[in-house]
Amino acid sequence: MFTYALDERTVLRPLTKEHVQPLFELIEMSRDRLRQWLPWVDSTTEISHTEQFVQSALKQAAENGSLTAGIWMDNELAGIISYHEINWTHRSVSIGYWLGHGYEGQGLMTSACRVFVEYALMELDLHRVEIRCATTNRRSRGIPERMGFVLEGIIREAELLPDGYMNHAVYGMLQKEWKQLR
Amino acid sequence: MFTYALDERTVLRPLTKEHVQPLFELIEMSRDRLRQWLPWVDSTTEISHTEQFVQSALKQAAENGSLTAGIWMDNELAGIISYHEINWTHRSVSIGYWLGHGYEGQGLMTSACRVFVEYALMELDLHRVEIRCATTNRRSRGIPERMGFVLEGIIREAELLPDGYMNHAVYGMLQKEWKQLR
Amino acid sequence: MFTYALDERTVLRPLTKEHVQPLFELIEMSRDRLRQWLPWVDSTTEISHTEQFVQSALKQAAENGSLTAGIWMDNELAGIISYHEINWTHRSVSIGYWLGHGYEGQGLMTSACRVFVEYALMELDLHRVEIRCATTNRRSRGIPERMGFVLEGIIREAELLPDGYMNHAVYGMLQKEWKQLR
Amino acid sequence: MFTYALDERTVLRPLTKEHVQPLFELIEMSRDRLRQWLPWVDSTTEISHTEQFVQSALKQAAENGSLTAGIWMDNELAGIISYHEINWTHRSVSIGYWLGHGYEGQGLMTSACRVFVEYALMELDLHRVEIRCATTNRRSRGIPERMGFVLEGIIREAELLPDGYMNHAVYGMLQKEWKQLR
Amino acid sequence: MFTYALDERTVLRPLTKEHVQPLFELIEMSRDRLRQWLPWVDSTTEISHTEQFVQSALKQAAENGSLTAGIWMDNELAGIISYHEINWTHRSVSIGYWLGHGYEGQGLMTSACRVFVEYALMELDLHRVEIRCATTNRRSRGIPERMGFVLEGIIREAELLPDGYMNHAVYGMLQKEWKQLR
Amino acid sequence: MFTYALDERTVLRPLTKEHVQPLFELIEMSRDRLRQWLPWVDSTTEISHTEQFVQSALKQAAENGSLTAGIWMDNELAGIISYHEINWTHRSVSIGYWLGHGYEGQGLMTSACRVFVEYALMELDLHRVEIRCATTNRRSRGIPERMGFVLEGIIREAELLPDGYMNHAVYGMLQKEWKQLR
Repeated sequence: MFTYALDERTVLRPLTKEHVQPLFELIEMSRDRLRQWLPWVDSTTEISHTEQFVQSALKQAAENGSLTAGIWMDNELAGIISYHEINWTHRSVSIGYWLGHGYEGQGLMTSACRVFVEYALMELDLHRVEIRCATTNRRSRGIPERMGFVLEGIIREAELLPDGYMNHAVYGMLQKEWKQLR
Repeated sequence: MFTYALDERTVLRPLTKEHVQPLFELIEMSRDRLRQWLPWVDSTTEISHTEQFVQSALKQAAENGSLTAGIWMDNELAGIISYHEINWTHRSVSIGYWLGHGYEGQGLMTSACRVFVEYALMELDLHRVEIRCATTNRRSRGIPERMGFVLEGIIREAELLPDGYMNHAVYGMLQKEWKQLR
Repeated sequence: MFTYALDERTVLRPLTKEHVQPLFELIEMSRDRLRQWLPWVDSTTEISHTEQFVQSALKQAAENGSLTAGIWMDNELAGIISYHEINWTHRSVSIGYWLGHGYEGQGLMTSACRVFVEYALMELDLHRVEIRCATTNRRSRGIPERMGFVLEGIIREAELLPDGYMNHAVYGMLQKEWKQLR
Repeated sequence: MFTYALDERTVLRPLTKEHVQPLFELIEMSRDRLRQWLPWVDSTTEISHTEQFVQSALKQAAENGSLTAGIWMDNELAGIISYHEINWTHRSVSIGYWLGHGYEGQGLMTSACRVFVEYALMELDLHRVEIRCATTNRRSRGIPERMGFVLEGIIREAELLPDGYMNHAVYGMLQKEWKQLR
Repeated sequence: MFTYALDERTVLRPLTKEHVQPLFELIEMSRDRLRQWLPWVDSTTEISHTEQFVQSALKQAAENGSLTAGIWMDNELAGIISYHEINWTHRSVSIGYWLGHGYEGQGLMTSACRVFVEYALMELDLHRVEIRCATTNRRSRGIPERMGFVLEGIIREAELLPDGYMNHAVYGMLQKEWKQLR
Repeated sequence: MFTYALDERTVLRPLTKEHVQPLFELIEMSRDRLRQWLPWVDSTTEISHTEQFVQSALKQAAENGSLTAGIWMDNELAGIISYHEINWTHRSVSIGYWLGHGYEGQGLMTSACRVFVEYALMELDLHRVEIRCATTNRRSRGIPERMGFVLEGIIREAELLPDGYMNHAVYGMLQKEWKQLR
């Protein structure tokens, strides 16, 4: 029912149970590329796994105030963006995202991510937003770089993916920086 | 972040933790009228009660797929509309709603309710929507009546309110009826 | 161990774990008729389903103060009667019941139901008892009618059974009415 | 609603929420004597403690199949008898009991206990029933002794009561023994 | 990481998840003898059962303050010793233990048990330690007897094992006795 | 009961409920310095807060396999070292630590930390250990630096402390590096 318009063809929608089917289909269609970067892809082999993911995302939203949204283009699900668990003590959050096959390279995720950063720092009044990308994932790293995030470090061999351990590039944006950049 | 536009000045937003403060203020401002019709008003005396309400609404949404939304007019919270627990076995749901002081009589709730009925019957594919109003609450009863709901019965002394037990008028709308009416 | 005598041959007993076996046998024996009116019959295919039912009935009794009893005739289980969840805020409860094959037409359920209505209104001091029957289930509707319940409405297509959606006849009895009738 | 008649004036009733008030009153009235033998008496100072006890007894009954009953004489609550948690693996249970002020010395508890032993060994088909009494509580020890239980040991300083650590006399009855004695 | 040295070749270690594999292997190797005395052996047929045991022992330790340790000889797991649930109200605990095939008859368990009794009575300041052995398990009974425990009773047919119901010899040691004996 | 000896005067002990009292006393005594670096100090004002900390540390240990230990010098509690939640998917863990007033500057924590790194990488077979220190906490940063950890980044304004937001220096050690260094 609810949307946030990114442009005339594209909207964000909060993830709900009704989205399990299109979400699983998008994963199926994009499996080859996604598994390089997302550790859960190879163990998501049937729709019930996606149901569990949606259920646990909604549960975390209820308890923590975090949020997961679908990116919809021409009424087709194109990708997912979410706040991981919000740290209310230190007022920080990290953002994760992925796009399905065929939706890359059009600026979709940069638009969506801009909304999530704005909402975290200006509406939720958080102090810091973090984005972590595998160092070799150039496309993913372009997103925080285009928005003006600062590269703060390279965390070595932080994540186990099918091709082995990946280094993480850590990008940070502070509230005061965003106020000047936006 | 997310909205559903009812008209140029009015939107629905899914209820979130950020809405606790305006929600409690709206209750405070509208206490005299609301307590006639809503059994929880007199026991909602501090903001933590509203926090608990929001928390439990989000938890039910996560588990059951139900939904609670705020109605916002000119960026002020005007009222609340929600699905009570959805019965997925028999594919039915009931809708509850209330408006704060000063927002009645402008057709706001009929617009919002129309969206909730449409979504329940056409998107969630439910079979039946029910609305229950105290028989003496003429304003509230006008909403299902304007939308073409059928009055199915008067359940006697079903609800204990400050002025005593109230009769419930039960209104029903079936999916097949809605398809013809909308 | 505990009983409530309805007459010389018939007693009510609170449902316990020891009754799982006779309860499942009664369902097995009465399956053809029961499935017309009770949505859970077709999915009760093995004794573990009945175990789960008994477990959840006992758990609800512990938490809510509700009650499920077996009706025993000549030491054989004949049927079940229960309070659904008691609404302590509005002081109301609904009663559900069914008889196994061969036990209908002897007034058993009317006697049992009279005890449950009396206990709800006079011992638990509830304000209202409700009974809902499928409109086409003449035998079931006879019970509230013989006890003087008021038919308050016909809730359309409220329950999905193997033959399709059924209308519900809603019957109500108030405490003050029962005091005059009993 | 449900009863088990011990004699014309006395019945057992399964403990329910409705009994919280008379149970707390009986404890209040009998406090001086009970506190010598029951470790929970001094910390049961308001009715909410008794509510919690009833709630937890019902919860254990739902999960474990155990049972707590009130002994009622002339419609007044006289005492409590219960199965502690049933050990279904080794098929054994222990029984606990107490009488309020003014109800001792009339054989009430021996009658009630006989029913609980019979039900445990013959209906629940348990293998062994155990009763533990403080060695200096002559009245309490008389009950298993009159029923033919065997004294199996004296467990030293097993229980901390207001007057210090008490020894426990342990009495046992096996199913095969009961079949011959009853 | 952590140890308590019993002698130059033997240490106690608190049970952790890393010990699941050697523990299951020890059970496998010792199955014939253990099943005579331990009711859980025949239902421990795969490593996941041992995982569940370790998990529940750690959970009880977290909630209750109890403890389970492995006895390690020359870096091989030889057996298990544990406090069952500690009764903090009456300040008592019982100790259970077993040795794997090939580790009996060397005084290992008497040494380990001495440490557990000392810790319970002198560090945790408990009032009473209890050990229960099947009456026919001479080797097991030797341990409390060598340490000076008092035989307090024979609880008849208390435990169901593959060869039938076993009597339990109950041994007790009080804090004041241990202070003189140690 | 259990220990790991660091040297003749100093041992590690797994944290248990018996340590609540000395732990709270150490915090009380060291409050002025600790509050500069640890966000929980100012809200730890009574012993029940420390009880809750110990309880939750033990619960996490039971569920996750992580570990919290006290550092004891001459039988006095000197400080705490712990694994935060172990990430078994990516096989990494971070280590946190602090010393009480009067125990700094003697190499105590470097010794303790060496044991925790060794155990994580060689016994638990983790791939990576991380240590995060406030950039201005020179003493704390000395520990990973002396052990040969690599400084991987400066995460800006990551933690809210009484003096404001602190930057985090992130240090990493990989299993393969440790094998060469130890």
